[in-house]
Amino acid sequence: MTNTSDVTKIILDCDPGHDDAMAILLAIGNPKIDLIGVTTVGGNQSLDKVTYNARATLEAAGATDVPVRAGCDRPILRPLKVAAAVHGESGLDGVELPEPSRPLDEGHAVNWIIDTIMNNEPGTITLVPTGPLTNIAMAVRLEPRIVDRVKEVVLMGGGYHVGNCSAVAEFNVATDPEAARIVFNEKWPLTMVGLDLTHQALCTPEVQGRIDAIGTDLAHFASGLMDFFRKAYQNNQDFVDPPVHDPCTVAYLIDPDVMTTRRCPLDVETHDGPTLGMTVADLRGPEPSAEECHTQVAVKLDFDRFWNLIIDAIKAIG
Amino acid sequence: MTNTSDVTKIILDCDPGHDDAMAILLAIGNPKIDLIGVTTVGGNQSLDKVTYNARATLEAAGATDVPVRAGCDRPILRPLKVAAAVHGESGLDGVELPEPSRPLDEGHAVNWIIDTIMNNEPGTITLVPTGPLTNIAMAVRLEPRIVDRVKEVVLMGGGYHVGNCSAVAEFNVATDPEAARIVFNEKWPLTMVGLDLTHQALCTPEVQGRIDAIGTDLAHFASGLMDFFRKAYQNNQDFVDPPVHDPCTVAYLIDPDVMTTRRCPLDVETHDGPTLGMTVADLRGPEPSAEECHTQVAVKLDFDRFWNLIIDAIKAIG
Amino acid sequence: MTNTSDVTKIILDCDPGHDDAMAILLAIGNPKIDLIGVTTVGGNQSLDKVTYNARATLEAAGATDVPVRAGCDRPILRPLKVAAAVHGESGLDGVELPEPSRPLDEGHAVNWIIDTIMNNEPGTITLVPTGPLTNIAMAVRLEPRIVDRVKEVVLMGGGYHVGNCSAVAEFNVATDPEAARIVFNEKWPLTMVGLDLTHQALCTPEVQGRIDAIGTDLAHFASGLMDFFRKAYQNNQDFVDPPVHDPCTVAYLIDPDVMTTRRCPLDVETHDGPTLGMTVADLRGPEPSAEECHTQVAVKLDFDRFWNLIIDAIKAIG
Amino acid sequence: MTNTSDVTKIILDCDPGHDDAMAILLAIGNPKIDLIGVTTVGGNQSLDKVTYNARATLEAAGATDVPVRAGCDRPILRPLKVAAAVHGESGLDGVELPEPSRPLDEGHAVNWIIDTIMNNEPGTITLVPTGPLTNIAMAVRLEPRIVDRVKEVVLMGGGYHVGNCSAVAEFNVATDPEAARIVFNEKWPLTMVGLDLTHQALCTPEVQGRIDAIGTDLAHFASGLMDFFRKAYQNNQDFVDPPVHDPCTVAYLIDPDVMTTRRCPLDVETHDGPTLGMTVADLRGPEPSAEECHTQVAVKLDFDRFWNLIIDAIKAIG
Ligand SMILES: [Ca+2]
Ligand SMILES: [Ca+2]
Ligand SMILES: [Ca+2]
Ligand SMILES: [Ca+2]
Repeated sequence: MTNTSDVTKIILDCDPGHDDAMAILLAIGNPKIDLIGVTTVGGNQSLDKVTYNARATLEAAGATDVPVRAGCDRPILRPLKVAAAVHGESGLDGVELPEPSRPLDEGHAVNWIIDTIMNNEPGTITLVPTGPLTNIAMAVRLEPRIVDRVKEVVLMGGGYHVGNCSAVAEFNVATDPEAARIVFNEKWPLTMVGLDLTHQALCTPEVQGRIDAIGTDLAHFASGLMDFFRKAYQNNQDFVDPPVHDPCTVAYLIDPDVMTTRRCPLDVETHDGPTLGMTVADLRGPEPSAEECHTQVAVKLDFDRFWNLIIDAIKAIG
Repeated sequence: MTNTSDVTKIILDCDPGHDDAMAILLAIGNPKIDLIGVTTVGGNQSLDKVTYNARATLEAAGATDVPVRAGCDRPILRPLKVAAAVHGESGLDGVELPEPSRPLDEGHAVNWIIDTIMNNEPGTITLVPTGPLTNIAMAVRLEPRIVDRVKEVVLMGGGYHVGNCSAVAEFNVATDPEAARIVFNEKWPLTMVGLDLTHQALCTPEVQGRIDAIGTDLAHFASGLMDFFRKAYQNNQDFVDPPVHDPCTVAYLIDPDVMTTRRCPLDVETHDGPTLGMTVADLRGPEPSAEECHTQVAVKLDFDRFWNLIIDAIKAIG
Repeated sequence: MTNTSDVTKIILDCDPGHDDAMAILLAIGNPKIDLIGVTTVGGNQSLDKVTYNARATLEAAGATDVPVRAGCDRPILRPLKVAAAVHGESGLDGVELPEPSRPLDEGHAVNWIIDTIMNNEPGTITLVPTGPLTNIAMAVRLEPRIVDRVKEVVLMGGGYHVGNCSAVAEFNVATDPEAARIVFNEKWPLTMVGLDLTHQALCTPEVQGRIDAIGTDLAHFASGLMDFFRKAYQNNQDFVDPPVHDPCTVAYLIDPDVMTTRRCPLDVETHDGPTLGMTVADLRGPEPSAEECHTQVAVKLDFDRFWNLIIDAIKAIG
Repeated sequence: MTNTSDVTKIILDCDPGHDDAMAILLAIGNPKIDLIGVTTVGGNQSLDKVTYNARATLEAAGATDVPVRAGCDRPILRPLKVAAAVHGESGLDGVELPEPSRPLDEGHAVNWIIDTIMNNEPGTITLVPTGPLTNIAMAVRLEPRIVDRVKEVVLMGGGYHVGNCSAVAEFNVATDPEAARIVFNEKWPLTMVGLDLTHQALCTPEVQGRIDAIGTDLAHFASGLMDFFRKAYQNNQDFVDPPVHDPCTVAYLIDPDVMTTRRCPLDVETHDGPTLGMTVADLRGPEPSAEECHTQVAVKLDFDRFWNLIIDAIKAIG
């Protein structure tokens, strides 16, 4: 049984998205995570679609106690370009989605994020963005005091040596680079779980076999997501197995030993040009201390530990 | 007596600021304007100071029924650089400010702007920004539906041939160029009352003599503001008389004949370089129609008509 | 009769182009100008075409003693986009060009510009660029000492309040903004004869009637150029009469009273965005002295004086 | 004995600079390289200093038959910022330089590069830039035909995952990013030997002991350079041993097996911001063929093979 002091309260700000869905399942199924709410942002698909997908994924997991609130439908400065090639027309192609029984919760995601942080004890809420950082940037500009009150920010996005939507830029950051610049430069503790790490989180056939073997409806749901995701990555990005980015963030919060990290200054390039949307990590010289540097990057995944967490979560939900 | 259908409901989003204060007085004192609320934004001075100044100015005008709400304390992407050289350490140097009797109203300016627009009939609320456009940009990103619901946006900022804080950029736009880019590109009817126009709105000694001659405390308050403003412009920008920018927006809403306008496409330069923060007006070719182009710029001021409105308003307040 | 001390030795660096051809005629036909060489640059049309056009124009004027050398075929950083819509496929559409009897002179224009400046007495050579500034920028980077040795630079390009190929950018500068930035920032005396001025140099029917009335082959040649140019400007830029940009530079060197000027700092915007290629003139405050500021802009044309110079030159050539 | 068909004719375009000096020695001392000329460019130090250093290094190596010509003294667009912290006030601090007996050769480096390429058989001249790419960019803009006539370009500069003067930019490219953008985008075969590779070329104490053991004056000269370079890298960049960048290019031309390479598209970021001067390598997907992609990056150094070449060259010069 889990002691409440071991439980991390998180807000998952996402754009499901196949890997976002896996992040939801991990957050629901692991006892060390208290998913106090899901917020959504236009990204992999339009806000309407990803919001529906978040609700449907929670329904599939039987987690109808988790509120979902919709946030910003587009990046701060630039038009939204969805990732239909990777996630399909629905944003969660490849599975049949259950009808959500819980209505969409009222209020704007950005205001709810602010209110939740300001109304909880300082240092108790962790932000876990796994989509474009629009909502988080908007929240911090509306209410700067949240910076000192969140426990930390653990986000999926960027990459210090790897890009996907350009040679050096990753989708979440490239979609709203100005928002990312804002979020990376606020002085909260921030862990960037980027492509350098998530490209190690491959759903191999062996892993997927283990998911299938669970045998529940939810396991089939997860496996169906992985089937589509595999084909999408084979067709679009020369991968054999799909990298399952977003749950790496939640896994890190459950067990920091699931990955190694390296502390370094981070910034985001917002100028149009070949590096637009790049996360710039300064890895020169010795690693700074936490006092010197509030940001770190994820480096090396413990593959087995990661997938064990995922599989245990799916089993636990039942 | 004014027919309600002739009355324009405005939200004045400002950063007082000497000329913002004059805009408040004009809005209070003219019967064709219903100032339903003042919102504030970090600009000429810090958010705390300009918010206090807005409340104190309303107090000086006896308008304690007008709510004031504080908004964003800094631009979206860039640090705030206040204009202490022009407006002094308080943001409203040169006069003694009355203690506001009405407490600051609760809630964030951005949310109040959204709620007010969404809760009033479509086409009834006019936005009058006279500071950096941060609050308005944040509002439209949080709630895109406000674009179709506001009546129009009439803002002080920019300049098609004139700059002040750089060769080609004006303070409000240069302070938050990304916010300005957002606001200028939304498809609402937008009138840019820029430096081209406002540099004609000079408070000459003759004008100031007419203000003094009103003889009320409020007239002395206004005249004190102008004294400081004159010296600031003499010391900083080679003006003999100070240009009183912000009330030109309100004057246009009272009487469109106070200025001529020219319809043209507008955009804002957000790249670092010699044109950062410039409002780019495309004045080539014949003037487009309102159907073709939702933006226009103010061109020529009717000096006498403008100052008559100001003086009448100060008189009317008493 | 003209005293040699009154004669200005110029290098005309051009991209003919209808108005470049008029500049050549003015330089040939006016006794106060000694056209020591023509150099060409890719701009209105490809380098090959504009070089041929320069030679053919000199042939038409009987000026086979003037050498022509070809320069750079493209801008420093950006691809060349020619102005076929304004100048036609040949770059000089609308007239039959005489076959040049003088072969193209050997050597690269950039090297010849450098050698000519370095081999003449300091302060005796005036550079007159009427195309993109690629050659001049290349010359000054290859041989920085030319800056102190040229007499002055009088160029057609830019505009402080007027654009043509974008809302705020003129063709010559927009074609190679990096070259323009280089040329404007070197500390030689520089006069920018921009669109603000040249849009006053309209070839009206009355003016063209006077050209026709000269009755020579060359006059018909010039008039043919103007016929095409008129149609091109009517079709492309909403002009009734075509602005004859390039000879304004030569006219200013013949008689400074042909225009008023205003001294002001100048820079060029090189960032991609709505102001790319804009010439940024800082017109704030009082006019600086020549010691304080090495750059000036042309403001107001003396229309009659200008066209008299052109017509006299065409007559003088015979 | 070396067959002439095995000998590579190179132009070394450099800014000595301690590692440039080592590149000169390797080119002089290895029989498979014919150093037909050295050209210099402002970079590590001012043009005057690096030109003197090139001549003095050739003097030290007894190579008075090799011509030296001075090129551009500054980057195309930006001011020159020399690397005095790494190379000292002279650009070659730490050794006594012999007085050059051969006078500086006449003519501009850029023109000599062009003439040499155009006057030799196509495909016979290799360009080896080890400083900022200003000269090479200027040459290709003055004479575009050199692109098809050079055999290849093998340059020291950039880095696909490593920076030195910023988090992601290397000195040579960051000094003149516009020049680098020009050079990288021309369609000649280009090998980027960047920091990823050259940070493996460390002059360890064991290596330096082997240089010392040669016992000649030239060996002491080389060792003296390494002493200074070691201290500079210890003080400035947290290295224990100095990376000897520039000779890696020459080593690759002598023996391609000295390093592995990876073909990939390359571009250079020229916008001001955190990635200014970054070389952007697109390493996504499978490696393209030489037909598909004209650029490649150096990846893995054969440390022993590299240093054996250096030591053999110093021995061979005697
Ligand atoms: Ca996601
Ligand atoms: Ca204001
Ligand atoms: Ca021209
Ligand atoms: Ca070097």
